[in-house]
Amino acid sequence: MTGYTATVTVRLKHGVLDPEAETTQQALERLGFELEDLRSADRFEIDLEAESAEDARERADEMAERLLANPTIHDYDVEVDER
Amino acid sequence: MTGYTATVTVRLKHGVLDPEAETTQQALERLGFELEDLRSADRFEIDLEAESAEDARERADEMAERLLANPTIHDYDVEVDER
Repeated sequence: MTGYTATVTVRLKHGVLDPEAETTQQALERLGFELEDLRSADRFEIDLEAESAEDARERADEMAERLLANPTIHDYDVEVDER
Repeated sequence: MTGYTATVTVRLKHGVLDPEAETTQQALERLGFELEDLRSADRFEIDLEAESAEDARERADEMAERLLANPTIHDYDVEVDER
């Protein structure tokens, strides 16, 4: 077994309203910053023991499907690094 | 001017309690997943126009310092890619 860190990034699907991101963008603009767009995402860094990077990725993928992301409104991606 | 996307990742400092991450980890374990640790972070993807990648990074850095991160409890890093 090897130690891996799987990073799951969960984003809102294109077209889903993101009031938190909008508020953050407006606050930055009020501070004088110029920006075109701001999107927010949740990032989960998961340490796990697995037989292989492939195995770690599959398990992180299943965690995203079952709990971390809501498939109706979210897209996600998984990145795996050896610890 | 060139279009860049600056990605700011904001994490809780080591030692700061993260009840959201703890709850998420427990929920995954209750679903039968085995994991050693789970950390959560906020990720902001900021589209901006800048003279150079260096300039884009400096501005994203300032946004993190002034609004996106709270230096008392957060660490952050900035990544810049051309759009």
